[in-house]
Amino acid sequence: MKLEIDSGLLSAELQTLAGFSDAPAPAVTRIVFSEQDRRAREYVKGLCLAVDLRVREDAVGNTFARWEGSDPALPAVGTGSHIDAIPHAGRYDGTVGVLGGLEAIRALQRAGVRPRRSIELLIFSAEEPTRFGIGCFSSRMLAGLLDGSGLRDRDGKTLDELRFAAGFHGDLASVPLSPGYYAAFLELHIEQGPLLERSGIPLGVVTAIAAPASFKVIVEGEGGHAGALLMPDRHDALCAAAELVLAVESAARSTGSENTVGTVGVCEVFPGAVNSVPSIVQMEVDVRDTESVRRDGVLTGIQRAAKEISSRRGVAIRIEMVNADRPAVCDPGVVEAVIRAAATHGLPYQKMVSRAYHDSLFMSHIAPVAMLFIPCRDGVSHRPDEYASPKAIAAGTLVLAEALGELAAGAGD
Amino acid sequence: MKLEIDSGLLSAELQTLAGFSDAPAPAVTRIVFSEQDRRAREYVKGLCLAVDLRVREDAVGNTFARWEGSDPALPAVGTGSHIDAIPHAGRYDGTVGVLGGLEAIRALQRAGVRPRRSIELLIFSAEEPTRFGIGCFSSRMLAGLLDGSGLRDRDGKTLDELRFAAGFHGDLASVPLSPGYYAAFLELHIEQGPLLERSGIPLGVVTAIAAPASFKVIVEGEGGHAGALLMPDRHDALCAAAELVLAVESAARSTGSENTVGTVGVCEVFPGAVNSVPSIVQMEVDVRDTESVRRDGVLTGIQRAAKEISSRRGVAIRIEMVNADRPAVCDPGVVEAVIRAAATHGLPYQKMVSRAYHDSLFMSHIAPVAMLFIPCRDGVSHRPDEYASPKAIAAGTLVLAEALGELAAGAGD
Repeated sequence: MKLEIDSGLLSAELQTLAGFSDAPAPAVTRIVFSEQDRRAREYVKGLCLAVDLRVREDAVGNTFARWEGSDPALPAVGTGSHIDAIPHAGRYDGTVGVLGGLEAIRALQRAGVRPRRSIELLIFSAEEPTRFGIGCFSSRMLAGLLDGSGLRDRDGKTLDELRFAAGFHGDLASVPLSPGYYAAFLELHIEQGPLLERSGIPLGVVTAIAAPASFKVIVEGEGGHAGALLMPDRHDALCAAAELVLAVESAARSTGSENTVGTVGVCEVFPGAVNSVPSIVQMEVDVRDTESVRRDGVLTGIQRAAKEISSRRGVAIRIEMVNADRPAVCDPGVVEAVIRAAATHGLPYQKMVSRAYHDSLFMSHIAPVAMLFIPCRDGVSHRPDEYASPKAIAAGTLVLAEALGELAAGAGD
Repeated sequence: MKLEIDSGLLSAELQTLAGFSDAPAPAVTRIVFSEQDRRAREYVKGLCLAVDLRVREDAVGNTFARWEGSDPALPAVGTGSHIDAIPHAGRYDGTVGVLGGLEAIRALQRAGVRPRRSIELLIFSAEEPTRFGIGCFSSRMLAGLLDGSGLRDRDGKTLDELRFAAGFHGDLASVPLSPGYYAAFLELHIEQGPLLERSGIPLGVVTAIAAPASFKVIVEGEGGHAGALLMPDRHDALCAAAELVLAVESAARSTGSENTVGTVGVCEVFPGAVNSVPSIVQMEVDVRDTESVRRDGVLTGIQRAAKEISSRRGVAIRIEMVNADRPAVCDPGVVEAVIRAAATHGLPYQKMVSRAYHDSLFMSHIAPVAMLFIPCRDGVSHRPDEYASPKAIAAGTLVLAEALGELAAGAGD
């Protein structure tokens, strides 16, 4: 087969998709179940329908766009990613895997391929934790790891309220896929790190995905008048929180491995007035490592610091774990298919670990997965200046198409 | 004259006023120019009109309720305070001086007093800095220290937009009072500190008001993906801000005087997502001292710390001074009048310094001022559990009435 990627079309589609945003360009803000999310979904579904994919949505908005194979009873080959974006993010995170996945299917169609297995583009309802405080809620549900009934957003709205309002009905129990649903799942994504760019290699073949953990911290001190409450009498929640922010940083640095990262991304102060001593601070903390034992050591270190700060300052510090996932090992067979596809097109690759988590981490519970990374400028992601060149995207999409074609042509189960 | 305070009425009025709130009871949130502020103003104006005070409002909502004296050409005697409240505050801060001031006038009326000078209740439009980021904007304007044209709230709305919408028209240039307008100005207030309660003394006669300073801090680091951005490559704005929070605390403690306080009351993180490294943090800092030289030393210490943090972490830290006011010395004549009034009623007092700032700080630029403090429970203020007993309020109001009566009876200029 002769595969050709229409890089101009793909770039134009990425640009159009970036326009569905609650932040001014070049920033992209697209929270799951928002109005911009709804419009973006409609746009992508339209592109899928235009090339005769059969579109189905599940009860939480996961969208499956299926190109029927000649043997439709066989488990399908899946590809895809997400289109939701955190506040003030960029335009390539997730979207390259969705629109690149679609272009890979179109390239196979244009080359006259008739796959034996169905090839399915899967657009996860939300990968980002912005709304529900937990990442990948929809792939966790697809994998049967989360039932979704306890999810609420910051305004207290339940998943049911939000999905019904967005037009997604049906039973939550119908969301999990059966473990044999996909013969393989392959996600194309920007690296979100600097390694490929530094080494000048266009492709990263992911062999493992780091184990993320996140937790909420509620610091309760005592408020009061910023002029009249004397310093020795204070139990300032923000001062305690500040020490914990620094403790997270130093715990993450203390492992000596560059694979450990720790971040306090959310810090909200109550009551939040210049002349009032903070009484409550709520934080959200993210800790990741490629090795879960080392990551758990960091978590223990942070808990120990919280205890010490709490008793020394006379403030209450409560830690609520949100998730502490295991790392995923990619499937050697799918990894090999990607490597063969790169070789077919003469493109160099390097094997690597994903420090960012992705929906593939949870898909690995029910399918053989692999991921294909392309370089992004300066390794920057989750920022408006996130950038991947059309050439880099085209190379990744080409290898994705090649690998999907091979995986879909493969023998039945 | 025989002065009697109607403590039951005053308590009931304080309770009614507390009901005009954007927070559920017992918390009070009443931001200037909000709908609840409008309703509270109407309520208090109604009480003033009910006892035949003549009510006038200026271009920014300062409200003057005047009881005409027998010699109305003489400079008036003023009393009053504010009714705005920071988010999640209590019900006594400011309101005791407004409704207590009104009750003092009523007590004088009931006692058959006919004052020579007019007695005027002044309700400052806003003492709290919540909306405009600067405290006492309206008394600063009355004193001619601020023209108000540059004021904007956090949503970017100008003072003009807000005051017009609230029904306050007229020229900003008409707001300043002439320096001879008041013969004396006396503000009744809860102490907002623990000293009176600790010593069991019902009255504090304020001889000086501490010098407040406040500034904004904008920390600009570099954002990125919380999973992929390696620790050594980070310029995390929140980690830098956390160090500065602790630097403010330690600079305030380092003077060794209990009269120095430093507080970071506002800390906002951008973009504020759990999986995103913070790129920008905005803070608001409040530093006060009874001695301005010592306070300025603390400010210098904080600036030095900011410089060091900025260069070590590779983040930009910008400090924007909002105000750095001089302390006020109360007028000996007005102070003596208060002391005589306390003696008349056999009430013990102690002289003290106000660590909190008040509108009287700015009124001192155009009038002889003094303040009268009453104890509040545990020294707590700016919190829903702020409390002053009806007995304590009645004692302060009685002495206020006595002093106003004497000051208004005094010889002409």
